[in-house]
Amino acid sequence: MGTCWLWEECAVGLVVQKYGGSSVADAAAIKRVAQRIVATKKEGHEVVVVVSAMGDTTDELLDLAQQVSPLPPGRELDMLLTSGERMSMALLAMAIGDLGHEARSFTGSQAGVITDSVHGRARIIDVTPGRIRQALDGGAIAIVAGFQGVSQDSKDITTLGRGGSDTTAVALAAALNADVCEIYTDVDGVFTADPRIVPVARRVPHISYEEMLELAACGSKILHLRCVEYARRYGIPIHVRSSFSTLTGTWVSESQGSEQADMEQPIISGVAHDSSEAKITVVGVPDKVGEAATIFSSVAAADVNIDMIVQNVSAVDTNRTDISFTLPASDGRKGVEALTAIQATVGFESLRYDDGIGKVSLIGAGMRSHPGVSAKFFSALADAGVNIEMISTSEIRISVVVRADDIDAAVTAIHRAFDLDADQVEAVVYGGTGR
Amino acid sequence: MGTCWLWEECAVGLVVQKYGGSSVADAAAIKRVAQRIVATKKEGHEVVVVVSAMGDTTDELLDLAQQVSPLPPGRELDMLLTSGERMSMALLAMAIGDLGHEARSFTGSQAGVITDSVHGRARIIDVTPGRIRQALDGGAIAIVAGFQGVSQDSKDITTLGRGGSDTTAVALAAALNADVCEIYTDVDGVFTADPRIVPVARRVPHISYEEMLELAACGSKILHLRCVEYARRYGIPIHVRSSFSTLTGTWVSESQGSEQADMEQPIISGVAHDSSEAKITVVGVPDKVGEAATIFSSVAAADVNIDMIVQNVSAVDTNRTDISFTLPASDGRKGVEALTAIQATVGFESLRYDDGIGKVSLIGAGMRSHPGVSAKFFSALADAGVNIEMISTSEIRISVVVRADDIDAAVTAIHRAFDLDADQVEAVVYGGTGR
Repeated sequence: MGTCWLWEECAVGLVVQKYGGSSVADAAAIKRVAQRIVATKKEGHEVVVVVSAMGDTTDELLDLAQQVSPLPPGRELDMLLTSGERMSMALLAMAIGDLGHEARSFTGSQAGVITDSVHGRARIIDVTPGRIRQALDGGAIAIVAGFQGVSQDSKDITTLGRGGSDTTAVALAAALNADVCEIYTDVDGVFTADPRIVPVARRVPHISYEEMLELAACGSKILHLRCVEYARRYGIPIHVRSSFSTLTGTWVSESQGSEQADMEQPIISGVAHDSSEAKITVVGVPDKVGEAATIFSSVAAADVNIDMIVQNVSAVDTNRTDISFTLPASDGRKGVEALTAIQATVGFESLRYDDGIGKVSLIGAGMRSHPGVSAKFFSALADAGVNIEMISTSEIRISVVVRADDIDAAVTAIHRAFDLDADQVEAVVYGGTGR
Repeated sequence: MGTCWLWEECAVGLVVQKYGGSSVADAAAIKRVAQRIVATKKEGHEVVVVVSAMGDTTDELLDLAQQVSPLPPGRELDMLLTSGERMSMALLAMAIGDLGHEARSFTGSQAGVITDSVHGRARIIDVTPGRIRQALDGGAIAIVAGFQGVSQDSKDITTLGRGGSDTTAVALAAALNADVCEIYTDVDGVFTADPRIVPVARRVPHISYEEMLELAACGSKILHLRCVEYARRYGIPIHVRSSFSTLTGTWVSESQGSEQADMEQPIISGVAHDSSEAKITVVGVPDKVGEAATIFSSVAAADVNIDMIVQNVSAVDTNRTDISFTLPASDGRKGVEALTAIQATVGFESLRYDDGIGKVSLIGAGMRSHPGVSAKFFSALADAGVNIEMISTSEIRISVVVRADDIDAAVTAIHRAFDLDADQVEAVVYGGTGR
């Protein structure tokens, strides 16, 4: 195996592979993935495959659900949606069988993915992969439905929500003590920026869990936050790679200081952007203790995830403050409703809702201790004529909110300022994205 | 409830309803079925619904399987196909929820349908409907996936094969001690002949299990043999009716002599036909003890169901006999191969295969004891110019094999001869047929 530079001496081991919906979109794609799986098996590895529903199946099922009920019960929606993976996994097992290797498919429930009872976004609370282990011991390849499990209390079928298939793969890798969890996608790994914006973005050969978490939190779609958190907790190395090529992709694992030449130099991983957020400004909040707490409690009670928060003295009345925060645009309505409900109690003047924003972030180790990093970051934006609306920083991240129209210019400017541009185009985008 | 003439005083009870694929073909059909189910619930009954996959889903899944593997493993094919009912049952539960009633869907496994391990045509060996009982006790309507179960030994998902959904319904009715099992189809019940051939066929208001078994065995598609056998064994009354009307259909139950005016008169239930069979003639079998046994053992070992058998002295050599038998045309190749393999051992001369045949049967109680019945039967065929190739009779049936081209003429002639023609057209055929 030529791509196993993190594996000691390319040892034979247990590999968990995850293929998204675009990798199994039709019969031809399924047959191609089957060949790839068999090739891994032939190298001597034990292979567990986690698969998403084919192409647009999930959207089509959601559409059917909408046709019979505007607000379908979560239990039944999960029952419906899980039929998608059932199809893809059975077909994949057949395609492998056709290549002369035994494959056995397992639902989330059969694979021992035990969850809580929150339909639509259940959390994994245990993984008991006895039947998977048994299939592997019998020499078979195990194919597992991603995105699904069974609730511990009610024994009902659940789905894991966004990033569910990646999380299934990492959770199985942890429970089976796998050597690596390979996440197949439609690009050759993690890049220093979205290649659709920065064609000269570079592939990142290795990234730490922490940096990957920040990238995911800042809008990188390549791995879901939840899956990276799980991998970090259990120390599972993730190899993000393309199902359309055999190139080495990006390894996500513990940071390995010894690999770095200049340990005291900040290591910039990349530039991320996110155009899925919106901004709410609560205008004219009376400047009293506890008002911010009331505001954010009400938003949290509406089950809205808040990202960045900024508080300023009000431009109108110095006894009042303006509080701005960002949230997923899809939660915008819920957020506004929750705040409107407490307007009289809190006594703020008005609400402003703005979904024409974007977030641009620079991710990298050792950033806080290098003041030069932020200076270079803000200069680059200023030179590009990009106006900044909000700022937030962490140990390994600087994020700014800008106008949505400025995202591309901001990403390009920052990428160039930090010398991330490659000499030539490295990134190939092969297809769509999976679940 | 106006249609419950077999229920004592229209008591409130437990109803199992089965809807085929054509009844849930799309969102509109699912919503209509949901209303029907809710209406039954509102009458005060506990309701368990067994549902097939939507419209052509099963065929589409089979087509997908063919695209990835010419001979898919049975375990994986069952995993694939069972996703069909998973979709329809979840959608039906949603549609009922949308009408303000709680419905919970259950897979075959969740409903406690325990089978053997023969993928593709598993047999039910136990039904443990604890979760269904629990759902009913909680006031919910239970929706169960038809056609599927879980194997006792391997805990793998199985499908029950042809007639599987009807059989699921009857099996659940038996295990739950239901008052009636309603099988919804696209006609208003069992008719004295196929209305597509005999437009003046009459609806049969009541038929015994035995007669229904003969009808099913003789080609009537309305109920599968297996489901009627199950119902007879457990004494479950079946009400066959249309999902497109509210008319009373046909009740299938123990024969009730007291209802009949003339107990000594033969009661003709109807004329059935079957064009799905073929005939194999084994020509020139040496006339020795045990040769027939060898022939039929080899065919049975190839898992072919034999229907009618006729043995004649050979026209060519009087020391030899010709043995003809009918079998499902779909098993024709298997049958011929099995016989070819023993040709040398048995020493027969040749095989003749003929799939241009049809079977026409008259079903009714008290037939054997009335010689007039067979006389009238054969006269009708002779008058219609239909040539008879094979004959077989039982207590309640006369069957003949004729040329396929003669089926319509034979059915029409017999129906008229036994005064079964209605004064006007009673049958309405509403749509396609389900699984």
